[in-house]
Amino acid sequence: MKNVAIVGASGYTGGELLRMLSVHPEVEVTEITSRKLDGQPVHKTHPHIRDTGLVFKDKKPSDIDADVIFTATPHGASMKIVPELLETGAKVVDLSGDYRYRNTEVYEKWYGMKHTDKKNKGAFGLPELYRDEIEKANLVSNPGCFPTGAILSSYPLVKNDLVEKIVIDSKSGVSGAGVTPSGTTHYPNIADNVNPYKISAHRHTSEIQQELHGFDDVKVSFTPHLVPVNRGIQTTSHSFLKEEHLDITPDEIRSLYEEEYGDEYFIKLMDEGEIPHLSSVRGSNFVHIGGFEIDETGRIVMLSCIDNLVKGASGQAIQNMNIVLGLKEQLGLQHLGIYP
Amino acid sequence: MKNVAIVGASGYTGGELLRMLSVHPEVEVTEITSRKLDGQPVHKTHPHIRDTGLVFKDKKPSDIDADVIFTATPHGASMKIVPELLETGAKVVDLSGDYRYRNTEVYEKWYGMKHTDKKNKGAFGLPELYRDEIEKANLVSNPGCFPTGAILSSYPLVKNDLVEKIVIDSKSGVSGAGVTPSGTTHYPNIADNVNPYKISAHRHTSEIQQELHGFDDVKVSFTPHLVPVNRGIQTTSHSFLKEEHLDITPDEIRSLYEEEYGDEYFIKLMDEGEIPHLSSVRGSNFVHIGGFEIDETGRIVMLSCIDNLVKGASGQAIQNMNIVLGLKEQLGLQHLGIYP
Amino acid sequence: MKNVAIVGASGYTGGELLRMLSVHPEVEVTEITSRKLDGQPVHKTHPHIRDTGLVFKDKKPSDIDADVIFTATPHGASMKIVPELLETGAKVVDLSGDYRYRNTEVYEKWYGMKHTDKKNKGAFGLPELYRDEIEKANLVSNPGCFPTGAILSSYPLVKNDLVEKIVIDSKSGVSGAGVTPSGTTHYPNIADNVNPYKISAHRHTSEIQQELHGFDDVKVSFTPHLVPVNRGIQTTSHSFLKEEHLDITPDEIRSLYEEEYGDEYFIKLMDEGEIPHLSSVRGSNFVHIGGFEIDETGRIVMLSCIDNLVKGASGQAIQNMNIVLGLKEQLGLQHLGIYP
Amino acid sequence: MKNVAIVGASGYTGGELLRMLSVHPEVEVTEITSRKLDGQPVHKTHPHIRDTGLVFKDKKPSDIDADVIFTATPHGASMKIVPELLETGAKVVDLSGDYRYRNTEVYEKWYGMKHTDKKNKGAFGLPELYRDEIEKANLVSNPGCFPTGAILSSYPLVKNDLVEKIVIDSKSGVSGAGVTPSGTTHYPNIADNVNPYKISAHRHTSEIQQELHGFDDVKVSFTPHLVPVNRGIQTTSHSFLKEEHLDITPDEIRSLYEEEYGDEYFIKLMDEGEIPHLSSVRGSNFVHIGGFEIDETGRIVMLSCIDNLVKGASGQAIQNMNIVLGLKEQLGLQHLGIYP
Repeated sequence: MKNVAIVGASGYTGGELLRMLSVHPEVEVTEITSRKLDGQPVHKTHPHIRDTGLVFKDKKPSDIDADVIFTATPHGASMKIVPELLETGAKVVDLSGDYRYRNTEVYEKWYGMKHTDKKNKGAFGLPELYRDEIEKANLVSNPGCFPTGAILSSYPLVKNDLVEKIVIDSKSGVSGAGVTPSGTTHYPNIADNVNPYKISAHRHTSEIQQELHGFDDVKVSFTPHLVPVNRGIQTTSHSFLKEEHLDITPDEIRSLYEEEYGDEYFIKLMDEGEIPHLSSVRGSNFVHIGGFEIDETGRIVMLSCIDNLVKGASGQAIQNMNIVLGLKEQLGLQHLGIYP
Repeated sequence: MKNVAIVGASGYTGGELLRMLSVHPEVEVTEITSRKLDGQPVHKTHPHIRDTGLVFKDKKPSDIDADVIFTATPHGASMKIVPELLETGAKVVDLSGDYRYRNTEVYEKWYGMKHTDKKNKGAFGLPELYRDEIEKANLVSNPGCFPTGAILSSYPLVKNDLVEKIVIDSKSGVSGAGVTPSGTTHYPNIADNVNPYKISAHRHTSEIQQELHGFDDVKVSFTPHLVPVNRGIQTTSHSFLKEEHLDITPDEIRSLYEEEYGDEYFIKLMDEGEIPHLSSVRGSNFVHIGGFEIDETGRIVMLSCIDNLVKGASGQAIQNMNIVLGLKEQLGLQHLGIYP
Repeated sequence: MKNVAIVGASGYTGGELLRMLSVHPEVEVTEITSRKLDGQPVHKTHPHIRDTGLVFKDKKPSDIDADVIFTATPHGASMKIVPELLETGAKVVDLSGDYRYRNTEVYEKWYGMKHTDKKNKGAFGLPELYRDEIEKANLVSNPGCFPTGAILSSYPLVKNDLVEKIVIDSKSGVSGAGVTPSGTTHYPNIADNVNPYKISAHRHTSEIQQELHGFDDVKVSFTPHLVPVNRGIQTTSHSFLKEEHLDITPDEIRSLYEEEYGDEYFIKLMDEGEIPHLSSVRGSNFVHIGGFEIDETGRIVMLSCIDNLVKGASGQAIQNMNIVLGLKEQLGLQHLGIYP
Repeated sequence: MKNVAIVGASGYTGGELLRMLSVHPEVEVTEITSRKLDGQPVHKTHPHIRDTGLVFKDKKPSDIDADVIFTATPHGASMKIVPELLETGAKVVDLSGDYRYRNTEVYEKWYGMKHTDKKNKGAFGLPELYRDEIEKANLVSNPGCFPTGAILSSYPLVKNDLVEKIVIDSKSGVSGAGVTPSGTTHYPNIADNVNPYKISAHRHTSEIQQELHGFDDVKVSFTPHLVPVNRGIQTTSHSFLKEEHLDITPDEIRSLYEEEYGDEYFIKLMDEGEIPHLSSVRGSNFVHIGGFEIDETGRIVMLSCIDNLVKGASGQAIQNMNIVLGLKEQLGLQHLGIYP
């Protein structure tokens, strides 16, 4: 058994790590930290996690003793503690945005703050794209929730240089806004409503662009919406074919996805005409991808569904942990979506 | 007082006509027809419409006696009865798709059936664009719900020849799927979910294209989604500026909308940074339009919200009725949205 | 036209007063006050109330000049300003709990604070029970939302001395918790959930008891729940027949309700077997009452539905205003529920 | 590995059995039957169950070869096939109501049909009450969803002869109404609504009475409601103390529950003042019980939450399977609730 610590375990992603690791056969959570909940038993905050004996501790990074440490800390906070955590010899999986950028200037522009740890570089923790780098890393930077769904739904299109423009229109569940109440998450503002936000300049745009841009001059734009859903991100990706590829067929596009993802345990490609649904992945680490349609304007419509707290956060973090520990990648993550 | 009849009053749009006309000062509903509900009092079907004395009747078109007749009948059924209804001398407002197309071939292609009444032409019942034609019409063809939100949110852009491509990504409440239960509307399939459908070839695409295409070679594409909402259509419209207009500013775009819609009673333009919400128009005939942002890819993001059953159907039908009867356009439609 | 002022107009009940009064033919809102929103136009807070020119003012009570003043202020705040407001000569309709109790000791016990205005007595603003007193009052105390649904659903049973015990199990929409975000109203805590609260000692218990107790030794108990609904209170009232009335029939019970409520504009009794629904009263001032069943344990099941913000608050306040002004009681309140 | 067959696997309970058994370490699903889906791969119906190779078969009961057979068939259908299934030598866990009654006359009265298999008796499959009987049984009759939550929340009260009357007011998620669309499950009829139904005579009343009555002359009544929730049953149980027990304290009541359930893996008693929530048990086999309050009318308020498809159906069926197979009771059922 390996020991796991979770730094900043008071939020939803902390709760998800605890929920999923409770049935993981090879690791055990031995420490959970939180400054404001110091001394409180875990179930006061995560009422589904009972009888574990776990108690939040306010602990200095250097005092944490574990094989793997998850940092479920906010943007800006992670880079303050990760260097010290790495010095303990632990592997670190960071769930914030701090280590996601190859170029820290992009980070500084979109997050509006100085990056204080330019020394440590994180492997970009999207195993389906970067498995080899993650295997060798001491620090893995878990991708954002929107980028996970967006990148996976469009990657084969850009890799094969088919499209010139991608409009990503994503609809997210409200758990993505975190555990802290605000006007944004006030029930009467969400229920029976659709809330677009940061419609032309959400931070995750830069993370999606980093991963989809590299290949080419493709123009990537992104607009997120909050919908009356607890968990899940449904992404509709509208991509415009390059002039020279206008005669490609839906079947040919499907083949490119099968080639790319055919061996991936967590990615399921929908049948022809089958729409991926959040309910099929709810609570699970699976990604459902469908669409594969082309309209008369040369637009490819691709669809993806993930659980924002699982494949979009804590599940993917555990997948990364499994990889850095040399375990089977799907360990502790084999449970299926809660449908309906 | 003018007399009003509703043909096919058993569905949601029939209920909405009854709800709103119950407080209209100048008209009275005197007949409601339904084949399958013949003889039933109205509140058995519309439980909020009580103490009216109204009873569904199965009646021949030629026997209906009213100043205005609403046909809330399905596509294909309207064109079978409208000619006869017009012969009674009544003005007709049709809520189906049958008379929305200037070119009936487009109808026949997208609706998959022969058009059997090529003689009668309906004015396209979007008063903000076609008020003058509606005034003179005996037959008004009420627009579709998605097209109403989509056209109004993008019209000033195409009218001013600014954009080359529009991706309309719409999210609709489930009442848009009608009153008849099916897998599509089964609560566990909708709740906590997002359901894209007909992702590259929804019928309303052709109606939106008819209205936005005409001006130019702009490429219009459309994908609808069902979201866990009762009423309302939230439209996010992603438009790409033509090369020669890349230097236009958000303020200039706003000015074009103010110019176009400044005098419209039912259209409200949001403040800078203000997001339109379904809850602000719920149950009302108002349209809230916002967005006015441009990102670095040359994409304009416009947003609109309507109640699909009101401005997207029955409210707009009453607005059209007011116009054809020479009444003040907002009569009976002044109630505000039910917020929250 | 009469002039209306709303003190504390920043919350949901303030918004509802504005929404409904905007179509009232005999009154005009001329002043809205709020300390924290001083100087802000109304639509920044109530986005559906646009183009009114209304601006929040921070105003001393004695400076308010209106025929009727609504105090949409919190418990404890109303009794501080109502005496001064009454001195301006205005009629006052108070929406807080401050003036609901015949015996201020009950108030002090359940609200945990001293009552500082024992001089002014409010008429209990449930017109269906106290119309005559309201007509003559300068101060009307609008009932609580739960009590309105609970009292109306059970009143004929206790008036006729039929039952010995009433268990009121109510399910409320989240707008009842107000406009201020908190853990209680955080979307992920409400959606897909049911939240009982204050299960044996909610304040409204005492208000319900005051109205249903008086007649007899009937034991009244009450448990509220928050359900994933925006608006509305559904009340299931389980009443146990006294030994001597065990042979009463459902039809006889129905007759008692018809006798009591037959002439009431806002109360609708459901047909046999018909269940009242929130959707039928949503946004309206109507009360739907059904049930009328008796089981083998001698339990009568009665059901009622109201919109908590309308008949449970602002609509009833306007109904009271109409009465104190000598206007037709239903003026401005005739719009039907938003179904579905 | 033991082999498992599921008869009638097309509904939600069939899907749940498949979902949970997919991570069960000691059994494998080898056959799934359905008449109408004969030949279809499982994911066409249960889109989250992919890559299993399982295909629905239309098979005669006598041809089924498995160690354990789940009958997820409707009431009335189970008793037609169970005798034959038992003859194959398999253990049978029946999820219908057919074998739940000690007295088949009660079944015949409440289900309105003749019971055609009076020979086979099922152990009542509530392990927390009947573990010893289940261990020895060849046929286990899985309890109803409402009864599971209702019985567990009140059992210690009646076992200790404390109360004379119990009013059970339950709120159920819509998945309890099954996979077949109808007006009852039509999204616009459920969303933003509360639907009481069969308010004085739901079938499950008789099952609850069977289990809670036996002890004494306690009067048990029950009213179910559908709420806008996918999964889960929240039960509020209002019990009236017998005259001679009016001085009992909340702590004493809590002690009785601790005594009864202290060793139960799947039952968690909430802390003082802690409300059980559906989100804490969603997707899991756990039962959360809280309340323990007494008001001045001598009413005890108890609360329980279960997932209607898991502890209320398929999870409990697997728990019963584990017991009849002599396996550890919690095998395959250790995953926690999906919170939020």
